[in-house]
Amino acid sequence: MSIDAILDRIDAAMPQATERLLDLLRIPSISTDPAFKADCDRAADWLVEDLQSLGFEASKRPTPGHPMVVAHFDAPEVAGPHLLFYGHYDVQPVDPLALWSRDPFDPQIEETPAGQVIRGRGASDDKGQLMTFLEACRAWKAEHGTLPCRLTIFLEGEEESGSPSLIPFMKENADELRADVALICDTGLFESKTPAIVTMLRGLLGEELTIHGPSKDLHSGMYGGVAINPIRVLSGIIAGLHDDNGRITLPGFYDGVPELSDDMRAQWQGLAFDHARFLGDVGLSVPAGESDRTPLEMIWSRPTCEVNGIWGGYTGDGFKTVLPAEAHAKISFRLVGTQDPFAIREAFRGYVTDALPADCRVEFKGHGNSPAGQMSITHPAFEASRAALTDEWGVAAAYVGCGGSIPIAGYFKTYLDMDAMLIGFGKDDDQIHSPNEKYDMESFHKGIRSWARVLDRLTR
Amino acid sequence: MSIDAILDRIDAAMPQATERLLDLLRIPSISTDPAFKADCDRAADWLVEDLQSLGFEASKRPTPGHPMVVAHFDAPEVAGPHLLFYGHYDVQPVDPLALWSRDPFDPQIEETPAGQVIRGRGASDDKGQLMTFLEACRAWKAEHGTLPCRLTIFLEGEEESGSPSLIPFMKENADELRADVALICDTGLFESKTPAIVTMLRGLLGEELTIHGPSKDLHSGMYGGVAINPIRVLSGIIAGLHDDNGRITLPGFYDGVPELSDDMRAQWQGLAFDHARFLGDVGLSVPAGESDRTPLEMIWSRPTCEVNGIWGGYTGDGFKTVLPAEAHAKISFRLVGTQDPFAIREAFRGYVTDALPADCRVEFKGHGNSPAGQMSITHPAFEASRAALTDEWGVAAAYVGCGGSIPIAGYFKTYLDMDAMLIGFGKDDDQIHSPNEKYDMESFHKGIRSWARVLDRLTR
Repeated sequence: MSIDAILDRIDAAMPQATERLLDLLRIPSISTDPAFKADCDRAADWLVEDLQSLGFEASKRPTPGHPMVVAHFDAPEVAGPHLLFYGHYDVQPVDPLALWSRDPFDPQIEETPAGQVIRGRGASDDKGQLMTFLEACRAWKAEHGTLPCRLTIFLEGEEESGSPSLIPFMKENADELRADVALICDTGLFESKTPAIVTMLRGLLGEELTIHGPSKDLHSGMYGGVAINPIRVLSGIIAGLHDDNGRITLPGFYDGVPELSDDMRAQWQGLAFDHARFLGDVGLSVPAGESDRTPLEMIWSRPTCEVNGIWGGYTGDGFKTVLPAEAHAKISFRLVGTQDPFAIREAFRGYVTDALPADCRVEFKGHGNSPAGQMSITHPAFEASRAALTDEWGVAAAYVGCGGSIPIAGYFKTYLDMDAMLIGFGKDDDQIHSPNEKYDMESFHKGIRSWARVLDRLTR
Repeated sequence: MSIDAILDRIDAAMPQATERLLDLLRIPSISTDPAFKADCDRAADWLVEDLQSLGFEASKRPTPGHPMVVAHFDAPEVAGPHLLFYGHYDVQPVDPLALWSRDPFDPQIEETPAGQVIRGRGASDDKGQLMTFLEACRAWKAEHGTLPCRLTIFLEGEEESGSPSLIPFMKENADELRADVALICDTGLFESKTPAIVTMLRGLLGEELTIHGPSKDLHSGMYGGVAINPIRVLSGIIAGLHDDNGRITLPGFYDGVPELSDDMRAQWQGLAFDHARFLGDVGLSVPAGESDRTPLEMIWSRPTCEVNGIWGGYTGDGFKTVLPAEAHAKISFRLVGTQDPFAIREAFRGYVTDALPADCRVEFKGHGNSPAGQMSITHPAFEASRAALTDEWGVAAAYVGCGGSIPIAGYFKTYLDMDAMLIGFGKDDDQIHSPNEKYDMESFHKGIRSWARVLDRLTR
């Protein structure tokens, strides 16, 4: 069987595949920080070159932000479906840098009690994951001299910063990008063991606000008590966003939030999610969300409101008795079902504006918005891929939810009328978005093998 | 009359006096930031040398923090009272630096529509003010070859950072420092026009707290909704410190807060304080404190609770969907009457601890504490100084309150049993603790003349 030969090639070429990934990880492609713009560009160039070496017609495509990488393989001798693969080459910022055990952009293979890991920013999210697909293509090409079907590769450089250029680019290039089904590698194994296809994704709305009070920083001795303090105002606004039961108080916020179907609830209960371990791994013991929901519901099927950052006044060493002129926060909402990000943005801004006392004003800045996603698992590619994953991992693959936002899946449906399959090999302890991010060598190796099996199943 | 000759000398020597002040202002003696430790030392050396040139036996005295400067003039030929003069050579941090119109430590004389100003960090608070006294001594010495009475100069380098070394130093050197009366130059003119002696000072309690939640920064997609968010916890704690009427909610907080006497209330009403202008100058229009108090009461005779700084999570450009491991705030309380800072610290820490949800813990750090001060104006030096100030400014000098904390006045009473006279020449628009701090040339010039007249009156 040809798939065995390809799997053997993958096993034999792991040292070279690992070197390639380390090389890509050395590029600090932090998309949210303008200081790293040239590095994002460099990461795109690296991928274009690698894709060309695989026989793709690949190019870097400019956007008002960071470039897209688009590549096509369309040899007349191959039949089968037209597949699109999506990943992102940008990474999260690295602060707090002091908590990293090594330079986040000097990646390395580390031996740990749980096996080899690839340590560095982006190792898991998403450079390691996207390279699993490219390496599967490389092995296929080495064995057969061609690829198994018509393939489009679509790599983004703004996933970690709200994807401002994505929708315009997809709209402008819809005909070029449309395929039969999309494959997305930006998710994880369930409980770090069970291969999973994500069929339910939370959306995301990001908001930044600045509360302005006095026209300048004041001395709290001279003005304290008589002048409005923007930090106090901001704290009151944040404190009012949740009620005592953990529910979000914005008017209309729960419009479009569905209850879980009995079937899905039963399937999730069958997953035997160990929430004590899930929380215990990060030093917690008590679920902090809505008091009448299970932890799995909280992270997969319930909306949230989180403060991601807050700052104002004097934050250095020592003490300064300043009464600051302004205070800032970054706040995000995770969305589910058919919650409308624009309606929620309006409700949030209305709530803040109404809560302002005399002499205060507010400035808002939007940081991206995307509705939640729900895949239609009746497309035959889902069951074929589930079988391929089950073959590779020796555990029945599952359909699961995902608390994070991967808006691209929804966009493929909305703008290109394509179903998307979210298959990924990350583990819960990969520390994505945190210091010391890693990707298990097992994830990388079996991830490559998984894609080879999926390509095989989808093109039989 | 000898005082006229001295005043003439002061007028004639203003260019040299100004150069000396600019020289001192060039030293960035920011006491709260350890990076400026050597500069604090250098400012102390500068003052020792200047005091020696005036005939003082002056020395820099080590402490566990920044040094004290102590100088004595005790020639047998002079009679009269033994006066102690206090000032501080340290300055506030300069952030946000972008709001300064010039380098804060490259001071300059600027011509403005309201007259000449000396622009730079510390110009008013407190280097310009302390130099008024030294320049008055210099003119006296130039005229008479000696100083008018026994004098001790006591200059601190930690006033802007909670004065951690002050009480131990005063206790250890009590016999050396004790005098008949203390003169303190760290306050202002009332409404920028009326010379004033402050007889009522608010105390200060500084607290820093860190709320710890998860053991590391988390991805808000993966954990949002189920993991406790320390910023949200901190916001709730801050929001709960005041009720809807602006009163502070800590149990026992108002113990020891006196009502204003009818006399003092009448005197303050007579001052015709323009609160619309006071607030309008900083972009505000509505007093934000307790709804049943006048603005002058709020800033002179009522306690406060202010957040001076807050930070947590991602605060850089763009957006990061992090659920942070910790959140921080710096909070200060202005105290009046006989409020006990230690009891309030305990009440605050108890309130915070009780407000913590499961899985959170708090760390506290104290940043100094001092009770409020109340001067006894029956000491004859008060009326003599009031007359001297009235002579110089052509406006009847007033006894006033001060919203800021000048704990040294209380310490002189507590540890050295000395009354203190707080006389200063700052103006409301001096921007102390803010960008673009300045000291009016009028304040500097008439301040020097004022001290010469006070010395004259006190030694007649």
